[in-house]
Amino acid sequence: MYELFYYPGNASMAPHFVLEELGVPFELRLVDRKRNGQKDPEYMKRNPLGRIPTLVDGDLVLFESAAICLHLADRHPEANLVPVLGSDDRAHLYKWLMFLTNTIQPDLMEFFYPDRHTTRAEGIPAVRAAAEQRSQSGFVVIDDVLRSAGPYLLGERPSVADFFLLMLVQWAQDLSERPSRLAGIRRCADLIAARPGVQRAVVTEGLGPLY
Amino acid sequence: MYELFYYPGNASMAPHFVLEELGVPFELRLVDRKRNGQKDPEYMKRNPLGRIPTLVDGDLVLFESAAICLHLADRHPEANLVPVLGSDDRAHLYKWLMFLTNTIQPDLMEFFYPDRHTTRAEGIPAVRAAAEQRSQSGFVVIDDVLRSAGPYLLGERPSVADFFLLMLVQWAQDLSERPSRLAGIRRCADLIAARPGVQRAVVTEGLGPLY
Repeated sequence: MYELFYYPGNASMAPHFVLEELGVPFELRLVDRKRNGQKDPEYMKRNPLGRIPTLVDGDLVLFESAAICLHLADRHPEANLVPVLGSDDRAHLYKWLMFLTNTIQPDLMEFFYPDRHTTRAEGIPAVRAAAEQRSQSGFVVIDDVLRSAGPYLLGERPSVADFFLLMLVQWAQDLSERPSRLAGIRRCADLIAARPGVQRAVVTEGLGPLY
Repeated sequence: MYELFYYPGNASMAPHFVLEELGVPFELRLVDRKRNGQKDPEYMKRNPLGRIPTLVDGDLVLFESAAICLHLADRHPEANLVPVLGSDDRAHLYKWLMFLTNTIQPDLMEFFYPDRHTTRAEGIPAVRAAAEQRSQSGFVVIDDVLRSAGPYLLGERPSVADFFLLMLVQWAQDLSERPSRLAGIRRCADLIAARPGVQRAVVTEGLGPLY
Protein backbone atom coordinates (compact mmCIF):
# COMPACT_ATOMS: atom_id res chain seq x y z
CA MET A 1 0.00 0.00 0.00
CA TYR A 2 1.46 3.31 -1.07
CA GLU A 3 1.05 6.42 1.06
CA LEU A 4 1.22 9.83 -0.57
CA PHE A 5 1.74 12.89 1.61
CA TYR A 6 -0.02 15.61 -0.33
CA TYR A 7 -1.80 18.92 -0.34
CA PRO A 8 -4.48 19.78 -2.93
CA GLY A 9 -3.02 21.45 -5.99
CA ASN A 10 0.60 21.09 -4.84
CA ALA A 11 3.45 19.16 -6.47
CA SER A 12 1.76 16.03 -5.13
CA MET A 13 -0.73 16.38 -8.01
CA ALA A 14 1.37 14.55 -10.61
CA PRO A 15 2.12 11.54 -8.36
CA HIS A 16 -1.57 11.47 -7.39
CA PHE A 17 -2.57 11.40 -11.07
CA VAL A 18 -0.11 8.56 -11.68
CA LEU A 19 -1.27 6.51 -8.69
CA GLU A 20 -4.87 6.80 -9.91
CA GLU A 21 -3.85 5.97 -13.47
CA LEU A 22 -2.04 2.85 -12.28
CA GLY A 23 -5.11 1.76 -10.34
CA VAL A 24 -2.99 0.57 -7.40
CA PRO A 25 -4.07 0.83 -3.76
CA PHE A 26 -2.85 3.97 -2.02
CA GLU A 27 -3.74 6.24 0.84
CA LEU A 28 -3.54 10.00 0.86
CA ARG A 29 -2.06 11.74 3.90
CA LEU A 30 -2.86 15.41 4.09
CA VAL A 31 0.03 17.71 5.00
CA ASP A 32 -1.48 20.76 6.63
CA ARG A 33 0.16 23.49 4.60
CA LYS A 34 -2.00 26.15 6.21
CA ARG A 35 -0.13 25.40 9.43
CA ASN A 36 3.15 24.92 7.55
CA GLY A 37 2.97 21.19 8.22
CA GLN A 38 5.63 20.50 5.60
CA LYS A 39 8.14 22.06 8.01
CA ASP A 40 7.09 19.96 11.02
CA PRO A 41 10.03 18.00 12.45
CA GLU A 42 8.03 14.77 12.11
CA TYR A 43 7.39 15.38 8.42
CA MET A 44 10.95 16.49 7.79
CA LYS A 45 12.24 13.18 9.10
CA ARG A 46 10.73 11.75 5.94
CA ASN A 47 11.52 14.71 3.73
CA PRO A 48 14.45 16.92 4.80
CA LEU A 49 13.52 19.45 2.10
CA GLY A 50 10.29 20.23 3.92
CA ARG A 51 8.40 20.07 0.67
CA ILE A 52 5.31 18.29 -0.59
CA PRO A 53 4.99 15.46 -1.75
CA THR A 54 6.53 12.44 -0.07
CA LEU A 55 5.75 8.85 -1.08
CA VAL A 56 6.02 5.91 1.29
CA ASP A 57 6.41 2.60 -0.54
CA GLY A 58 7.16 -0.09 2.03
CA ASP A 59 10.59 0.67 3.43
CA LEU A 60 11.22 3.29 0.75
CA VAL A 61 10.53 6.92 1.62
CA LEU A 62 10.82 9.06 -1.49
CA PHE A 63 10.52 12.73 -2.33
CA GLU A 64 10.79 14.91 -5.45
CA SER A 65 7.62 14.84 -7.51
CA ALA A 66 9.24 13.86 -10.83
CA ALA A 67 11.27 11.12 -9.13
CA ILE A 68 8.11 9.68 -7.56
CA CYS A 69 6.36 9.63 -10.96
CA LEU A 70 9.28 7.83 -12.59
CA HIS A 71 9.62 5.37 -9.72
CA LEU A 72 5.91 4.50 -9.77
CA ALA A 73 6.06 3.92 -13.53
CA ASP A 74 9.11 1.67 -13.08
CA ARG A 75 7.34 -0.36 -10.38
CA HIS A 76 4.40 -0.96 -12.70
CA PRO A 77 5.81 -1.57 -16.17
CA GLU A 78 2.53 -3.16 -17.32
CA ALA A 79 0.95 0.31 -17.38
CA ASN A 80 3.39 1.46 -20.08
CA LEU A 81 3.86 4.90 -18.58
CA VAL A 82 7.61 4.68 -19.17
CA PRO A 83 9.45 3.19 -22.18
CA VAL A 84 11.74 0.19 -21.75
CA LEU A 85 15.19 0.60 -20.24
CA GLY A 86 17.92 1.63 -22.65
CA SER A 87 15.54 2.69 -25.44
CA ASP A 88 15.68 5.98 -27.29
CA ASP A 89 12.14 6.74 -26.12
CA ARG A 90 13.16 6.34 -22.51
CA ALA A 91 15.98 8.84 -23.06
CA HIS A 92 13.44 11.29 -24.48
CA LEU A 93 11.27 10.78 -21.41
CA TYR A 94 14.23 11.66 -19.17
CA LYS A 95 14.87 14.73 -21.32
CA TRP A 96 11.36 16.15 -21.08
CA LEU A 97 10.93 15.29 -17.43
CA MET A 98 14.23 17.05 -16.63
CA PHE A 99 13.24 20.10 -18.67
CA LEU A 100 9.83 20.29 -17.01
CA THR A 101 11.25 19.96 -13.50
CA ASN A 102 14.44 22.02 -13.87
CA THR A 103 13.13 24.87 -16.02
CA ILE A 104 9.34 25.29 -16.16
CA GLN A 105 8.68 24.16 -12.57
CA PRO A 106 11.28 26.51 -10.99
CA ASP A 107 10.15 29.37 -13.24
CA LEU A 108 6.57 28.89 -12.09
CA MET A 109 7.66 28.60 -8.47
CA GLU A 110 9.53 31.88 -8.89
CA PHE A 111 6.36 33.43 -10.31
CA PHE A 112 4.41 32.26 -7.25
CA TYR A 113 7.10 33.00 -4.66
CA PRO A 114 9.15 35.89 -6.08
CA ASP A 115 10.05 37.01 -2.55
CA ARG A 116 12.42 34.04 -2.30
CA HIS A 117 14.39 35.36 -5.26
CA THR A 118 15.48 38.77 -4.08
CA THR A 119 16.80 40.17 -0.83
CA ARG A 120 14.99 43.48 -1.45
CA ALA A 121 11.23 43.67 -1.14
CA GLU A 122 10.90 46.45 -3.71
CA GLY A 123 12.43 44.13 -6.33
CA ILE A 124 9.67 41.53 -6.05
CA PRO A 125 7.37 42.73 -8.89
CA ALA A 126 10.26 42.75 -11.39
CA VAL A 127 11.30 39.24 -10.36
CA ARG A 128 7.75 38.06 -10.80
CA ALA A 129 7.48 39.70 -14.22
CA ALA A 130 10.69 38.04 -15.44
CA ALA A 131 9.57 34.66 -14.10
CA GLU A 132 6.31 34.98 -15.97
CA GLN A 133 8.14 35.69 -19.24
CA ARG A 134 10.47 32.72 -18.80
CA SER A 135 7.56 30.42 -17.91
CA GLN A 136 5.79 31.40 -21.11
CA SER A 137 8.94 30.67 -23.14
CA GLY A 138 9.31 27.24 -21.58
CA PHE A 139 5.75 26.30 -22.46
CA VAL A 140 6.31 27.46 -26.04
CA VAL A 141 9.16 24.94 -26.41
CA ILE A 142 6.86 22.19 -25.14
CA ASP A 143 4.04 23.34 -27.38
CA ASP A 144 6.28 23.21 -30.47
CA VAL A 145 7.12 19.58 -29.74
CA LEU A 146 3.52 18.64 -29.02
CA ARG A 147 2.24 20.30 -32.18
CA SER A 148 4.85 18.77 -34.47
CA ALA A 149 5.24 15.34 -32.88
CA GLY A 150 2.35 14.89 -30.42
CA PRO A 151 -0.22 14.44 -29.19
CA TYR A 152 1.97 13.34 -26.25
CA LEU A 153 5.55 14.31 -25.36
CA LEU A 154 6.75 10.92 -26.62
CA GLY A 155 4.45 10.97 -29.65
CA GLU A 156 1.64 8.45 -29.85
CA ARG A 157 1.84 7.12 -26.32
CA PRO A 158 1.25 8.86 -22.98
CA SER A 159 4.00 8.72 -20.38
CA VAL A 160 4.51 10.11 -16.89
CA ALA A 161 5.94 13.27 -18.48
CA ASP A 162 2.44 14.15 -19.74
CA PHE A 163 0.94 13.77 -16.26
CA PHE A 164 3.70 16.00 -14.92
CA LEU A 165 3.00 18.52 -17.67
CA LEU A 166 -0.68 18.59 -16.77
CA MET A 167 0.26 19.62 -13.24
CA LEU A 168 2.36 22.51 -14.55
CA VAL A 169 -0.37 23.60 -16.96
CA GLN A 170 -2.80 23.63 -14.06
CA TRP A 171 -0.44 25.81 -12.02
CA ALA A 172 0.09 28.09 -15.01
CA GLN A 173 -3.54 29.15 -15.20
CA ASP A 174 -2.46 32.15 -13.12
CA LEU A 175 -0.17 33.42 -15.89
CA SER A 176 -1.59 36.32 -17.86
CA GLU A 177 -1.33 34.16 -21.00
CA ARG A 178 -2.32 30.65 -20.06
CA PRO A 179 -0.32 27.91 -21.81
CA SER A 180 -3.59 26.03 -22.31
CA ARG A 181 -4.29 28.51 -25.13
CA LEU A 182 -1.44 26.87 -27.10
CA ALA A 183 -2.85 24.19 -29.41
CA GLY A 184 -0.32 21.45 -28.74
CA ILE A 185 -0.43 21.88 -24.99
CA ARG A 186 -4.20 22.10 -25.01
CA ARG A 187 -4.54 18.84 -26.93
CA CYS A 188 -2.14 16.96 -24.63
CA ALA A 189 -3.62 18.40 -21.43
CA ASP A 190 -7.17 17.63 -22.55
CA LEU A 191 -6.26 14.03 -23.37
CA ILE A 192 -4.60 13.44 -19.99
CA ALA A 193 -7.27 15.33 -18.04
CA ALA A 194 -9.97 13.16 -19.62
CA ARG A 195 -8.51 9.94 -18.25
CA PRO A 196 -10.74 8.47 -15.54
CA GLY A 197 -7.92 8.22 -12.99
CA VAL A 198 -7.01 11.86 -13.40
CA GLN A 199 -10.64 12.83 -13.09
CA ARG A 200 -10.86 10.93 -9.80
CA ALA A 201 -7.78 12.76 -8.49
CA VAL A 202 -9.20 16.12 -9.57
CA VAL A 203 -12.41 15.43 -7.67
CA THR A 204 -10.56 14.19 -4.57
CA GLU A 205 -8.35 17.29 -4.48
CA GLY A 206 -11.29 19.59 -5.23
CA LEU A 207 -9.41 21.24 -8.07
CA GLY A 208 -12.52 22.53 -9.79
CA PRO A 209 -12.40 23.37 -13.51
CA LEU A 210 -8.90 22.62 -14.82
CA TYR A 211 -6.56 25.19 -16.40
CA MET B 1 30.39 6.39 -31.46
CA TYR B 2 28.88 9.03 -29.21
CA GLU B 3 29.25 12.72 -30.00
CA LEU B 4 29.04 15.25 -27.19
CA PHE B 5 28.47 18.91 -28.04
CA TYR B 6 30.22 20.70 -25.22
CA TYR B 7 31.95 23.80 -23.95
CA PRO B 8 34.62 23.64 -21.22
CA GLY B 9 33.14 24.01 -17.76
CA ASN B 10 29.54 24.07 -18.98
CA ALA B 11 26.70 21.62 -18.20
CA SER B 12 28.44 19.24 -20.62
CA MET B 13 30.92 18.52 -17.82
CA ALA B 14 28.84 15.82 -16.10
CA PRO B 15 28.13 13.87 -19.33
CA HIS B 16 31.82 14.23 -20.25
CA PHE B 17 32.84 12.77 -16.86
CA VAL B 18 30.41 9.89 -17.38
CA LEU B 19 31.60 9.14 -20.93
CA GLU B 20 35.21 8.99 -19.70
CA GLU B 21 34.20 6.87 -16.69
CA LEU B 22 32.42 4.42 -19.00
CA GLY B 23 35.50 4.18 -21.20
CA VAL B 24 33.40 4.16 -24.36
CA PRO B 25 34.46 5.80 -27.64
CA PHE B 26 33.19 9.34 -28.06
CA GLU B 27 34.05 12.54 -29.84
CA LEU B 28 33.79 16.02 -28.43
CA ARG B 29 32.30 18.75 -30.60
CA LEU B 30 33.05 22.24 -29.38
CA VAL B 31 30.11 24.67 -29.36
CA ASP B 32 31.58 28.12 -29.70
CA ARG B 33 29.91 29.87 -26.79
CA LYS B 34 32.03 32.97 -27.27
CA ARG B 35 30.18 33.47 -30.54
CA ASN B 36 26.90 32.27 -28.99
CA GLY B 37 27.14 29.06 -31.03
CA GLN B 38 24.49 27.40 -28.86
CA LYS B 39 21.95 29.73 -30.51
CA ASP B 40 23.02 28.94 -34.09
CA PRO B 41 20.10 27.63 -36.16
CA GLU B 42 22.13 24.52 -37.08
CA TYR B 43 22.77 23.72 -33.42
CA MET B 44 19.20 24.46 -32.44
CA LYS B 45 17.95 21.87 -34.90
CA ARG B 46 19.50 19.36 -32.51
CA ASN B 47 18.65 21.27 -29.35
CA PRO B 48 15.71 23.68 -29.50
CA LEU B 49 16.60 25.01 -26.05
CA GLY B 50 19.83 26.46 -27.44
CA ARG B 51 21.72 25.10 -24.46
CA ILE B 52 24.84 23.02 -23.96
CA PRO B 53 25.20 19.97 -23.96
CA THR B 54 23.70 17.79 -26.66
CA LEU B 55 24.53 14.09 -27.09
CA VAL B 56 24.29 12.26 -30.40
CA ASP B 57 23.94 8.51 -29.98
CA GLY B 58 23.23 6.98 -33.37
CA ASP B 59 19.78 8.17 -34.38
CA LEU B 60 19.13 9.57 -30.94
CA VAL B 61 19.75 13.27 -30.34
CA LEU B 62 19.46 14.07 -26.67
CA PHE B 63 19.71 17.15 -24.50
CA GLU B 64 19.42 17.99 -20.79
CA SER B 65 22.59 17.17 -18.89
CA ALA B 66 20.99 15.00 -16.19
CA ALA B 67 19.00 13.07 -18.81
CA ILE B 68 22.17 12.38 -20.79
CA CYS B 69 23.93 11.06 -17.67
CA LEU B 70 21.04 8.75 -16.84
CA HIS B 71 20.73 7.55 -20.43
CA LEU B 72 24.45 6.76 -20.71
CA ALA B 73 24.31 4.82 -17.44
CA ASP B 74 21.29 2.86 -18.75
CA ARG B 75 23.09 2.03 -21.99
CA HIS B 76 26.06 0.63 -20.07
CA PRO B 77 24.65 -1.27 -17.08
CA GLU B 78 27.95 -3.14 -16.62
CA ALA B 79 29.48 0.08 -15.26
CA ASN B 80 27.04 0.08 -12.31
CA LEU B 81 26.50 3.83 -12.40
CA VAL B 82 22.76 3.36 -11.95
CA PRO B 83 20.94 0.82 -9.73
CA VAL B 84 18.70 -1.82 -11.27
CA LEU B 85 15.25 -0.92 -12.53
CA GLY B 86 12.50 -0.91 -9.91
CA SER B 87 14.88 -0.96 -6.94
CA ASP B 88 14.71 1.38 -3.97
CA ASP B 89 18.23 2.57 -4.75
CA ARG B 90 17.20 3.56 -8.24
CA ALA B 91 14.36 5.63 -6.80
CA HIS B 92 16.87 7.39 -4.54
CA LEU B 93 19.04 8.11 -7.57
CA TYR B 94 16.07 9.73 -9.33
CA LYS B 95 15.38 11.75 -6.17
CA TRP B 96 18.87 13.20 -5.84
CA LEU B 97 19.30 13.80 -9.54
CA MET B 98 15.99 15.69 -9.62
CA PHE B 99 16.93 17.75 -6.58
CA LEU B 100 20.34 18.60 -8.03
CA THR B 101 18.90 19.59 -11.41
CA ASN B 102 15.70 21.33 -10.30
CA THR B 103 16.99 23.16 -7.22
CA ILE B 104 20.76 23.54 -6.93
CA GLN B 105 21.42 23.87 -10.67
CA PRO B 106 18.78 26.62 -11.25
CA ASP B 107 19.88 28.43 -8.09
CA LEU B 108 23.48 28.46 -9.32
CA MET B 109 22.36 29.55 -12.79
CA GLU B 110 20.45 32.40 -11.16
CA PHE B 111 23.60 33.33 -9.25
CA PHE B 112 25.57 33.43 -12.51
CA TYR B 113 22.86 35.07 -14.64
CA PRO B 114 20.77 37.18 -12.23
CA ASP B 115 19.86 39.54 -15.09
CA ARG B 116 17.52 36.86 -16.46
CA HIS B 117 15.54 36.94 -13.22
CA THR B 118 14.42 40.52 -13.03
CA THR B 119 13.06 43.03 -15.50
CA ARG B 120 14.82 45.89 -13.68
CA ALA B 121 18.60 46.23 -13.89
CA GLU B 122 18.88 47.82 -10.46
CA GLY B 123 17.39 44.68 -8.91
CA ILE B 124 20.19 42.40 -10.14
CA PRO B 125 22.47 42.47 -7.05
CA ALA B 126 19.58 41.51 -4.73
CA VAL B 127 18.59 38.63 -7.03
CA ARG B 128 22.16 37.41 -7.05
CA ALA B 129 22.41 37.65 -3.26
CA ALA B 130 19.24 35.61 -2.76
CA ALA B 131 20.39 33.01 -5.29
CA GLU B 132 23.66 32.63 -3.43
CA GLN B 133 21.83 32.03 -0.14
CA ARG B 134 19.54 29.42 -1.69
CA SER B 135 22.48 27.66 -3.36
CA GLN B 136 24.24 27.37 -0.02
CA SER B 137 21.10 25.89 1.56
CA GLY B 138 20.79 23.30 -1.18
CA PHE B 139 24.36 22.15 -0.71
CA VAL B 140 23.80 21.86 3.05
CA VAL B 141 20.97 19.35 2.42
CA ILE B 142 23.30 17.32 0.21
CA ASP B 143 26.13 17.57 2.73
CA ASP B 144 23.89 16.26 5.52
CA VAL B 145 23.10 13.16 3.47
CA LEU B 146 26.71 12.61 2.45
CA ARG B 147 27.97 12.95 6.02
CA SER B 148 25.38 10.65 7.55
CA ALA B 149 25.03 8.06 4.79
CA GLY B 150 27.90 8.63 2.32
CA PRO B 151 30.48 8.70 1.04
CA TYR B 152 28.31 8.76 -2.10
CA LEU B 153 24.72 9.95 -2.57
CA LEU B 154 23.56 6.33 -2.69
CA GLY B 155 25.86 5.26 0.13
CA GLU B 156 28.71 2.88 -0.62
CA ARG B 157 28.52 2.98 -4.39
CA PRO B 158 29.08 5.86 -6.82
CA SER B 159 26.32 6.69 -9.29
CA VAL B 160 25.79 9.30 -12.00
CA ALA B 161 24.32 11.59 -9.32
CA ASP B 162 27.81 11.98 -7.82
CA PHE B 163 29.30 12.95 -11.17
CA PHE B 164 26.51 15.49 -11.59
CA LEU B 165 27.18 16.80 -8.08
CA LEU B 166 30.88 17.24 -8.86
CA MET B 167 29.91 19.53 -11.75
CA LEU B 168 27.77 21.68 -9.46
CA VAL B 169 30.50 21.81 -6.80
CA GLN B 170 32.93 22.96 -9.47
CA TRP B 171 30.53 25.73 -10.53
CA ALA B 172 29.96 26.69 -6.92
CA GLN B 173 33.58 27.66 -6.30
CA ASP B 174 32.46 31.19 -7.12
CA LEU B 175 30.15 31.31 -4.09
CA SER B 176 31.53 33.26 -1.15
CA GLU B 177 31.32 30.08 0.93
CA ARG B 178 32.35 27.17 -1.26
CA PRO B 179 30.39 23.95 -0.68
CA SER B 180 33.69 22.07 -0.92
CA ARG B 181 34.36 23.32 2.62
CA LEU B 182 31.55 21.01 3.83
CA ALA B 183 33.00 17.67 4.94
CA GLY B 184 30.50 15.35 3.27
CA ILE B 185 30.59 17.18 -0.04
CA ARG B 186 34.36 17.43 0.08
CA ARG B 187 34.75 13.69 0.61
CA CYS B 188 32.36 12.79 -2.22
CA ALA B 189 33.82 15.35 -4.64
CA ASP B 190 37.38 14.25 -3.88
CA LEU B 191 36.52 10.60 -4.49
CA ILE B 192 34.86 11.32 -7.82
CA ALA B 193 37.49 13.84 -8.91
CA ALA B 194 40.23 11.27 -8.27
CA ARG B 195 38.81 8.80 -10.77
CA PRO B 196 41.05 8.49 -13.83
CA GLY B 197 38.23 9.17 -16.28
CA VAL B 198 37.26 12.38 -14.53
CA GLN B 199 40.90 13.44 -14.44
CA ARG B 200 41.12 12.94 -18.20
CA ALA B 201 38.02 15.09 -18.73
CA VAL B 202 39.39 17.79 -16.44
CA VAL B 203 42.61 17.93 -18.46
CA THR B 204 40.77 17.93 -21.79
CA GLU B 205 38.52 20.80 -20.72
CA GLY B 206 41.45 22.68 -19.15
CA LEU B 207 39.54 23.10 -15.89
CA GLY B 208 42.64 23.73 -13.80
CA PRO B 209 42.51 23.05 -10.05
CA LEU B 210 39.03 21.83 -9.13
CA TYR B 211 36.67 23.58 -6.70
